[in-house]
Amino acid sequence: MKCELRDNTITAEGDAVSELYDRGFYGRVKDGRLELALVEGAYLLYRKKIEIFSNGESVDFKTFFEIASKRITDFELGYIVFKDMRERGYYTKMSPIGFRLYPRGGHPGKTAAHIFVYLISERSRLPLQRMIQELNRAENARKRLILAIVDEESDITFYELKTSVMAGGDSKPDEIETPAEAGLIGDRTIVWDPEMADFLHSTYFFGKKLDEFRLQLSLVESGYLLARKWIEIEGMGLEAFDRYAAEIDPGYVLKYSAYSDLRDSGHVVKTGFKFGTHFRVYKKFRTDTHSEYLVHAVSSDHAFSLPELSRAVRIANSVHKRMIFGYPNCDRGRVGYIEIAWIRL
Amino acid sequence: MKCELRDNTITAEGDAVSELYDRGFYGRVKDGRLELALVEGAYLLYRKKIEIFSNGESVDFKTFFEIASKRITDFELGYIVFKDMRERGYYTKMSPIGFRLYPRGGHPGKTAAHIFVYLISERSRLPLQRMIQELNRAENARKRLILAIVDEESDITFYELKTSVMAGGDSKPDEIETPAEAGLIGDRTIVWDPEMADFLHSTYFFGKKLDEFRLQLSLVESGYLLARKWIEIEGMGLEAFDRYAAEIDPGYVLKYSAYSDLRDSGHVVKTGFKFGTHFRVYKKFRTDTHSEYLVHAVSSDHAFSLPELSRAVRIANSVHKRMIFGYPNCDRGRVGYIEIAWIRL
Repeated sequence: MKCELRDNTITAEGDAVSELYDRGFYGRVKDGRLELALVEGAYLLYRKKIEIFSNGESVDFKTFFEIASKRITDFELGYIVFKDMRERGYYTKMSPIGFRLYPRGGHPGKTAAHIFVYLISERSRLPLQRMIQELNRAENARKRLILAIVDEESDITFYELKTSVMAGGDSKPDEIETPAEAGLIGDRTIVWDPEMADFLHSTYFFGKKLDEFRLQLSLVESGYLLARKWIEIEGMGLEAFDRYAAEIDPGYVLKYSAYSDLRDSGHVVKTGFKFGTHFRVYKKFRTDTHSEYLVHAVSSDHAFSLPELSRAVRIANSVHKRMIFGYPNCDRGRVGYIEIAWIRL
Repeated sequence: MKCELRDNTITAEGDAVSELYDRGFYGRVKDGRLELALVEGAYLLYRKKIEIFSNGESVDFKTFFEIASKRITDFELGYIVFKDMRERGYYTKMSPIGFRLYPRGGHPGKTAAHIFVYLISERSRLPLQRMIQELNRAENARKRLILAIVDEESDITFYELKTSVMAGGDSKPDEIETPAEAGLIGDRTIVWDPEMADFLHSTYFFGKKLDEFRLQLSLVESGYLLARKWIEIEGMGLEAFDRYAAEIDPGYVLKYSAYSDLRDSGHVVKTGFKFGTHFRVYKKFRTDTHSEYLVHAVSSDHAFSLPELSRAVRIANSVHKRMIFGYPNCDRGRVGYIEIAWIRL
């Protein structure tokens, strides 16, 4: 079947609509003619379903690939992902961010696309705000949003993005009557009172026992308990403590906002150092349970590097936890959460 | 037993040498008296083995801990690690970087210390050069070097450091007669010749098949094959390619040095994107084998953040691979490697 390349479109007349669109759901029909995107054209050329002519001359795959990659940004990435999805039995439509994907067994005209695929190179950065924007768009349209990341060796990794509501933990802190005395030692505090040390640790899993009498608290734990008036530090009010903590740890304020939000909603929140994230989080805490989430706090102007994202999701996956990024959400006054999960398509 | 705190030392007379040194291997003997480090003193005070007097007055644990943490940098970290090791049955001696550790069942006077423990807070940065220096020191003394990282919640993570020789891979590239033609498409190249595409992929696992006829190569693969004259790119010499690659990927030169060194020694080297590292590396490559190493290239002035180190080691561990950092080693003209492995003490 003969097709004509003009600018960024391939057009075909005659049988094209019935052969390629009606049967294969390639391209889109306009004024009775079929228009193919260059990615679709390259695939049909490879499959020997079409011939492509430019200025009256037939172009081979190599020439077409070179032309197309000059005209379309990330053309080769689009081709890799399109080919992969097609060959695994999915129908797709082109979209501004990549593709709309139809459920297995479904196709245009029969079913609605159920997934928005966001195509991106491992070399790109993905700003958090862009992520939020695309998530809103997808969720408003009741679609799933999936990142398709093409690495430098043309392998594709798929991640699903979801907004997450972190609520319903079962360890909501109550009020207590008298604050316990704590002392600041370097970058941690020590609760000296044995009874209070034990209560904080065994009931809410705050801190780590220094020995059977004393409890060590991290900076965020200390700040949180200070704000709730569960502890007091001699000669140091909350504001002075916050300044002190931010001097020791420049990320303190950011980490604290996620920490306090999660504690307030009844989660037990511990360091995620062993996993290379800020926190591991328990929704229902028992001493014999594992944490369900890894939470990493990022600033609202954060731009993810994709290897960084890959590392975080990979670790969470390998320890059967869910990877959550928390960010200051000024609209709602608290913290927003996005879950990112590795999936097989 | 009464002890006296003066400056950064605790001294004890009388029975101290026979009770604490001969039986428990605490401190060191000087002029017939026992000198304890503050960390040892705090531990013996907690165990109620000694009383500590300062200016004639007895000091309790809390007071002593506060005094000591003001006098000794990272005193509380030292205490946490010392207590942990003692209570798990290890004898230690203080050292400039932390502790010397005796094998289980061994002790000073009977056996030599076999491990140098490098004590560090998760908030610190660990410069590569410092790591190399301590590794040399330990290896010259035929000791193992172990990092003891204390996280913000006072948990301790132990990593063993080793210099690593990456040699003996079984896929050493031969010479070939005629370079294959490759085309540059964005940030990868395509080998258009079907035979050569197949040879490169199936014999050496270069690149990824675009389809049954064509092979895609990453930037480092392209640069390597270009340097070996296995491929040629129309209108672009090696130098121009290197400039082009470094413009697309600012880390290209660094990654390339590790990549080419590993390929030259017969390893098969593929992207480690899915693991968040630069490379995964096969020593003996068969299509059904898994890679044995994850290799990440760092510059010679790199300073590791410890969460970064923790992430890398954790991932490698979870997929049963060995985590290796490669760095430009100007002394020896090639690339140096350090293996970092999570261990239980």
